[in-house]
Amino acid sequence: MPISGFPEWMPPQRMIEQRVLDRIRTTFELYGFSPLETRSVEPLDTLLSKGETSKEVYLLRRLQADENTKDDDALGLHFDLTVPFARFVMENAGKLQFPFRRYQIQKVWRGERPQEGRYREFLQADIDVVNRGELPFHYDCEMPLVIGDALGGLPVPRVRIQVNNRKICEGFYRGLGLTDTAQVLRTVDKLDKIGPARVAEALIETAGATRAQADACLELAAISADDGSFVDTVRKLGVTDPLLDEGLAELLQVVETAREHAPGLVTAELKIARGLDYYTGTVYETLLEGYERFGSISSGGRYDNLADTGKERFPGVGYSIGVSRMLGVLFGQNALHVSRSVPTCVLVALPSDEQRPASDRIAAALRKRGIPTEVAPTAAKFGKQIQYADRRGIPYVWFPGEPDTVKDIRSGEQVEADAAEWQPPAGDLHPVIAG
Amino acid sequence: MPISGFPEWMPPQRMIEQRVLDRIRTTFELYGFSPLETRSVEPLDTLLSKGETSKEVYLLRRLQADENTKDDDALGLHFDLTVPFARFVMENAGKLQFPFRRYQIQKVWRGERPQEGRYREFLQADIDVVNRGELPFHYDCEMPLVIGDALGGLPVPRVRIQVNNRKICEGFYRGLGLTDTAQVLRTVDKLDKIGPARVAEALIETAGATRAQADACLELAAISADDGSFVDTVRKLGVTDPLLDEGLAELLQVVETAREHAPGLVTAELKIARGLDYYTGTVYETLLEGYERFGSISSGGRYDNLADTGKERFPGVGYSIGVSRMLGVLFGQNALHVSRSVPTCVLVALPSDEQRPASDRIAAALRKRGIPTEVAPTAAKFGKQIQYADRRGIPYVWFPGEPDTVKDIRSGEQVEADAAEWQPPAGDLHPVIAG
Repeated sequence: MPISGFPEWMPPQRMIEQRVLDRIRTTFELYGFSPLETRSVEPLDTLLSKGETSKEVYLLRRLQADENTKDDDALGLHFDLTVPFARFVMENAGKLQFPFRRYQIQKVWRGERPQEGRYREFLQADIDVVNRGELPFHYDCEMPLVIGDALGGLPVPRVRIQVNNRKICEGFYRGLGLTDTAQVLRTVDKLDKIGPARVAEALIETAGATRAQADACLELAAISADDGSFVDTVRKLGVTDPLLDEGLAELLQVVETAREHAPGLVTAELKIARGLDYYTGTVYETLLEGYERFGSISSGGRYDNLADTGKERFPGVGYSIGVSRMLGVLFGQNALHVSRSVPTCVLVALPSDEQRPASDRIAAALRKRGIPTEVAPTAAKFGKQIQYADRRGIPYVWFPGEPDTVKDIRSGEQVEADAAEWQPPAGDLHPVIAG
Repeated sequence: MPISGFPEWMPPQRMIEQRVLDRIRTTFELYGFSPLETRSVEPLDTLLSKGETSKEVYLLRRLQADENTKDDDALGLHFDLTVPFARFVMENAGKLQFPFRRYQIQKVWRGERPQEGRYREFLQADIDVVNRGELPFHYDCEMPLVIGDALGGLPVPRVRIQVNNRKICEGFYRGLGLTDTAQVLRTVDKLDKIGPARVAEALIETAGATRAQADACLELAAISADDGSFVDTVRKLGVTDPLLDEGLAELLQVVETAREHAPGLVTAELKIARGLDYYTGTVYETLLEGYERFGSISSGGRYDNLADTGKERFPGVGYSIGVSRMLGVLFGQNALHVSRSVPTCVLVALPSDEQRPASDRIAAALRKRGIPTEVAPTAAKFGKQIQYADRRGIPYVWFPGEPDTVKDIRSGEQVEADAAEWQPPAGDLHPVIAG
């Protein structure tokens, strides 16, 4: 029986997922990120160390554990890849080279009530750069380029990255005279959910804002631009604050770097807040064009205190692709397809049971040259063997003979062929993923 | 802090692991196995449905679960990939094409006491072929070829696959007059651990064997051959039984198929029993040459009742590579190396902060042609930038200029280069794994 929140793809969907993961991984490595995989479990106190209570943890218990003995107690499955990464960095700081660039593609688990597009087990693909002491800002500019490159090479809808900087919000709120900037940020973060009128009311009620201050916050949140013009738009609101200036300069650098390397990828979107997360500067969200209503499928930001040993500080910037979430949305809309349900390109037919060694030799010769090949399961009538291929979408059936022939079962075309030389068209060698 | 039984590789080891997994996956697909990933959890009754009690299950509990409500109860992490696969096949039989060939590469968890080379979290790579009704025997012959091909293409020691067939053992024991063949099998399975003298004693004490019967069992277990000669050797022991004949014919077919396609890969080893598992015919174990003392790193067999819906039977044959176990052994013996600790092939130097856009453009041009590239973190002195590359094993440093030059920091050789055309030697493009 399916278990709510624990998705399971059929093999064709898994083929698509693997192709997506291959592209993501290859891109991350092109940018020099090293692979890392951490264990799936962390001590409960590590999982809760960021004061995070919104993500429900699954604890482990051994079935045959003695109730009276202390049993691995307080081990839980990780709910993201950032907390384990921070723990790994502190634990291994002496062995790592900083700045440390790593990617990590793993399952995570959250025991939340499953709802539309939310899973309890899902796959994330993260990149982070972390340094000792200080981390140069240019890494904040690099992140969206890596993500745009990874997802841009896939048959998924175009991605749009929305960027903001918490320093802009906090500086602006402070410059306005609001003191509980965290509460303002959390409230403004609800804009898409509850609309501007209710956000304004909430700001007045819970963050001590006047009507004018609330309106100014909403004006700031409404600013959006795909070039540096947002700086002037903010300035025209007449608020000044040194942190605001710093945030504007940083965001401008992100937007301008993206405009040069990946025009159309990045928008400055001043309503983005990522309310509950521990970001301290740049924040990113990612929308799929035409699927904006499903929300961000990938997000991240700068955290000046990813890890802190007391003696040393490890600031970082990172980005996480919600692979299961993105694919769940696209599969749900039937927006991704694969050309066949098996990797197999050629089925070698079996004229009789006695001839299996000969068919096996043909298959071995084809595989040796990288052509995925199966041999027919039984020496059934050729019509039935062709049906075996057809049902799986295998494009070619190979008939041993004097000479051998190979048939494209889609067109019916059949030609003489030599297993040591024949090559399928490049587009037929592996299953093709299309939008 | 490290948690006993939950291994974590450093990035260079993870690079090796990924290369191993890529080879395994590519090989499985060459043979037409489709990818599958099942959820990590199963209901407890599914996990225990094979009557398996030797593998300790981790149960999940939500941290904030209300003690009084029924909470996802009895969900546990899977301890192998066979039980989830059997469940998946029964659940989706109507949507799958049979015979169904799938591979599955995933973590599994066992809450056992960790000991030398045993993990609580580890990675397995499985292939299985399953059919409705009957499964032709030739699939038993194919399995070792796939595994030999997958592991043979890696810089790991040569693998030797040891094959036996339970029908030989059971038929022989029955032909000898022993009735509790399961108990005999379990006892003989301890041969490598406790030696022949104590096995003989145990057979007499627990399986009702006479001294002569016990000796005959030991004689059978001592038979080993890398060709079909084992058939005569067994016959000379003078025991006859129809099941024995069937087993001998099957094992002969496995050995002869392997001799043709992969000479030296497979040995008939009549002591192999895989005691506690639910196999019904062929059984496989796998040793690494020079690492035999660490035991089998990969095993499998034929199970005539992988799944059974009551109405239908789904026999299968499968093989599981213990990836973590194999790599744990080889890492522990320092037997695998990688040429650098990052994927990066080129570090683009940064003459000054103002020139970052130019260095970024060079990096983008190199990446576009598949060359993993980073830009130096700061405009430090070139000596320090070269040190950044050197510490990570990055072989090339690129100096922007008029013209650009690229330096192989191992040889010191520096040449003019154009980012739109320069190509590193193929052996430098990606990290190289070596034994």
